[in-house]
Amino acid sequence: MDAAANPSHALALVLVDELARNGVTDAVLAPGSRSTALALALHDDPRIRLHVQVDERSAGFLAVGLARATGRPAPVVVTSGSAVANLHPAVVEADTGAVPLVLLTADRPPELRGTGANQAIDQLGVFGRGVRWFVEVGVPEDRPGVVGYWRATTCRALAEARGLSGPPGPVHVNLAFREPTVPLTDDGRTAAAGPFAGPLAGRSGRRPWLVVDRTPRHAPAAELEALAGRIAGTERGLVVVGQTAADAAPVLDLARRAGWPVIAEPTSNVRYGDQVVASAHLLLGHAGFAAAHRPEFVLRVGRTGLSRNLARLLGPDVPQLLLDPDGAWHDPERAVAELLVADVGLTAATLRDALAVSASSEWSERWRTADARVREVGDRVLDAEAAPSEPRVARDLAAGLPDGTTLVVASSMPIRDLDQFLAPREHLRVLANRGASGIDGFVSTALGVALAGTRPTVALTGDLSLLHDANGFLLAPDAQRIDLPIVVVDNDGGGIFSFLPQHRFPAAFERVFGTPHGRDLADLARLHRLGYTPVAAAADLVPAVDAARRAGGIGLVHVRTDRADNLALHRRLTAEVHAALDALA
Amino acid sequence: MDAAANPSHALALVLVDELARNGVTDAVLAPGSRSTALALALHDDPRIRLHVQVDERSAGFLAVGLARATGRPAPVVVTSGSAVANLHPAVVEADTGAVPLVLLTADRPPELRGTGANQAIDQLGVFGRGVRWFVEVGVPEDRPGVVGYWRATTCRALAEARGLSGPPGPVHVNLAFREPTVPLTDDGRTAAAGPFAGPLAGRSGRRPWLVVDRTPRHAPAAELEALAGRIAGTERGLVVVGQTAADAAPVLDLARRAGWPVIAEPTSNVRYGDQVVASAHLLLGHAGFAAAHRPEFVLRVGRTGLSRNLARLLGPDVPQLLLDPDGAWHDPERAVAELLVADVGLTAATLRDALAVSASSEWSERWRTADARVREVGDRVLDAEAAPSEPRVARDLAAGLPDGTTLVVASSMPIRDLDQFLAPREHLRVLANRGASGIDGFVSTALGVALAGTRPTVALTGDLSLLHDANGFLLAPDAQRIDLPIVVVDNDGGGIFSFLPQHRFPAAFERVFGTPHGRDLADLARLHRLGYTPVAAAADLVPAVDAARRAGGIGLVHVRTDRADNLALHRRLTAEVHAALDALA
Repeated sequence: MDAAANPSHALALVLVDELARNGVTDAVLAPGSRSTALALALHDDPRIRLHVQVDERSAGFLAVGLARATGRPAPVVVTSGSAVANLHPAVVEADTGAVPLVLLTADRPPELRGTGANQAIDQLGVFGRGVRWFVEVGVPEDRPGVVGYWRATTCRALAEARGLSGPPGPVHVNLAFREPTVPLTDDGRTAAAGPFAGPLAGRSGRRPWLVVDRTPRHAPAAELEALAGRIAGTERGLVVVGQTAADAAPVLDLARRAGWPVIAEPTSNVRYGDQVVASAHLLLGHAGFAAAHRPEFVLRVGRTGLSRNLARLLGPDVPQLLLDPDGAWHDPERAVAELLVADVGLTAATLRDALAVSASSEWSERWRTADARVREVGDRVLDAEAAPSEPRVARDLAAGLPDGTTLVVASSMPIRDLDQFLAPREHLRVLANRGASGIDGFVSTALGVALAGTRPTVALTGDLSLLHDANGFLLAPDAQRIDLPIVVVDNDGGGIFSFLPQHRFPAAFERVFGTPHGRDLADLARLHRLGYTPVAAAADLVPAVDAARRAGGIGLVHVRTDRADNLALHRRLTAEVHAALDALA
Repeated sequence: MDAAANPSHALALVLVDELARNGVTDAVLAPGSRSTALALALHDDPRIRLHVQVDERSAGFLAVGLARATGRPAPVVVTSGSAVANLHPAVVEADTGAVPLVLLTADRPPELRGTGANQAIDQLGVFGRGVRWFVEVGVPEDRPGVVGYWRATTCRALAEARGLSGPPGPVHVNLAFREPTVPLTDDGRTAAAGPFAGPLAGRSGRRPWLVVDRTPRHAPAAELEALAGRIAGTERGLVVVGQTAADAAPVLDLARRAGWPVIAEPTSNVRYGDQVVASAHLLLGHAGFAAAHRPEFVLRVGRTGLSRNLARLLGPDVPQLLLDPDGAWHDPERAVAELLVADVGLTAATLRDALAVSASSEWSERWRTADARVREVGDRVLDAEAAPSEPRVARDLAAGLPDGTTLVVASSMPIRDLDQFLAPREHLRVLANRGASGIDGFVSTALGVALAGTRPTVALTGDLSLLHDANGFLLAPDAQRIDLPIVVVDNDGGGIFSFLPQHRFPAAFERVFGTPHGRDLADLARLHRLGYTPVAAAADLVPAVDAARRAGGIGLVHVRTDRADNLALHRRLTAEVHAALDALA
């Protein structure tokens, strides 16, 4: 091997070269010793930006953020041992949230396994069914054909992460390195790293070793024709779009042509246009409205799960078709009667073209009128208070962000507040870890999105989610500055529990559910040298975020709220909305 | 079911009752919704102290600390979804480090799995071969015999965690709860929790449902007789004791009787007495000494792995017997020729009794003289500097702690510094997560040890290990105050890499190995309201630790060091030790 000092070095050079040839632009590294060859190869390759994070759990989520923002596989490199297990939370999110995450885990060679050697754990298949693909590459050896094997394996790992016949997800590449793990020749000299030639080389013309094409699935014409007929013949139809990586805009066009209302969760990124019912959760919380607005047919796309009121509407008695581009089978109500595994955009466009010109319907009009009324009431209730409330922060932030912004939203209350109060708007991209809906890894995910170069990026989180991944801020400074205002709604604990039956157990509540932590986030900002702006008045929020954005860097915009006040506000909102809907009926 | 509101409530009450009957005294909870029944049952049971930690990774390690300190299984309860995956690092340490950890993971019922429902992931066997035992308990139902099933399953989980035929380790009990997960009766009233009677009851007299006895393994008399003869006939024998949960004191007695030197890692907790060679690592780094002191026979107990010099001595050409109480198979050098699976204490005592009266040997004397000389040189080198060096902090701290102290030591450099410079002493218990030797979970492990009531408890860590689990400090305040001085040797990054070949790649070194973070630990202390004492002079260390101990609560004792200075000091030490050994030869 011409330019490699030893087999470990050769494998690392080849693997990193093949990653770059396959379009990988960013990689994440959590430092360690056994992974040294990979660390140096990544560091030295000018085609890949390397991000260093000492906490492997955060490193995993940084890669999740990068991959979620770009759709491109993001590799994360860790050393052997418990480092690998720390990736598991990110693996879960990548698996359930369809994120192309590539784990490159250094390992000890077989002779050091199962015998109490340092930092040797059983890494083979350690994520079980949680990864799309696992490969034990084997200890690198200098033998004929090995370079093609390494290159083809790298291509397959990336292809499996992108999804071959199913949704994207995590893959696990286990790489056993025997010493020397450093690129030193046998006589102890440092070998040249960087571009190489000869036996290590890949395909000519910087091509990947193996090019994988995945073509979108077209539904059969006859089936589409029948479906179009059914849509045309249904007045009381409804489109529901949940979280999806697909561009769902054609589904909006289809709904407009059909004259059907659209319920779109924030991460559908199609909450805009005349058909959209933004306040669906509040509307459907009104029993009378829900009963009077049972659809005859529902076309579903993506994964829903933010509103129990919506889930209640989507019972098994309502005929539902799920358009599912890669067989992810998102049917939490077990209500879907037809599953159409086909490309979202192509299918929706074909269906739309098969329909006559748009017809506005009385059905659609009723949804629209009620929605407008509920939003009016909601706005009035939210605007009545000068102090910033949690729902108002979500509403005002989303409304006040400039076109082109990516908003990364944390699980639990922030994403629900946004679902309930995001006014219809275009040119705002909402991203969230809705795979496992965990509060973990949020800071790193948001940093990954910001690093992916989607500018501006802004984050919205609660205090627990921020603290859970406070180590995300340990990301090492890089040539590339990160600009990320993070709006933190801080109710000192777990706000969501106030909305659940748990609040009926007052003796235990604060200790096992509320969990007030008493931390001052100004101190967190000081520790990690973040910008810090407290916001005391609701009207100050958007200017504060604008200022943080202009200031650059990572900055906390800190909004203190009160869990009891928030519960009271939500109750007031519900009462006023119900009264308005009663009056409307 | 008399006093339970619903099956979820009944299962939770029964499980917690059976835990308490089996001697569980402490449990850890990371809050969530699906786990509500368990949270309330644990909260309400006066026999179990409940510790609440919002970060599940830290919660797992808190349980590791509790279980490591007490040897008793410690349960950790989490909600469904990614929360479960956050336990994986603790599972790895419990598996490889023989810690009885009991995971009680709430789950969604089968109908909510694999369908995109909120916070539902595939939890069945999610830790693969990493747990001793996994059980899917099944959705609780009110049917005949179910209480006995739940109780027997709880007993088995605890027994498997303690180790039935192998070492202790983690077990995973998956508990699917259908709504209502709160103890509310069908008509919405709150059911009485607390002691219960009738169908839920367990065995009379507060006994566990099933009592498990594990008797120690006696080696056959004939085998022991032969071994005793062999020991008596071997002058150049050596005892090596690594990390072990067994009481290795009888092994020391045996070595004294045999006239053999003893090399004891700090976590063996037998580094005391005349036979002990405290500076083994430095001694064996001298090629001449190592060559002249090849043993004819080595009796090994526990898991070694801190010294490459020792590993080099223990090559396959040196006859070695590993006394292994539960078949853990700790043979990283693949050098052991005989494995005796038998109780450590019983075996060592029988062997000792079979030997004649203690005979001091010339062999033992040579080790002892060299050891004394090396320790003298080492002390002189360390004492020559007024600024606190990393090895000196380890030496002085361990020497200065009062009798009865438990010292919890972090991986990477701190445990190695302690191995090299811990002067022989009794009445100091050293605990460390040497299973996977990760730097993760350290703060929580130390807090768990302190919570276990071993007073005083003191911790020694590096800055990266501290920061990695800074969330450990989010442990909710409890009725029981925690007293824990934490000595932090802060070299602003990964100090161990300076000792590895990685330092020969200066262009990449600081970015991918050194990873300076620039965080001021005083800010960390402020964030978490910890005591804080900076130590600038070596002589101030022990007084500062004493003061922190007297002040009570959790306090950082912050010692800044320099990675380059540390490397230089170690080189100076090695040079001086080698010169002394050259002179001795």
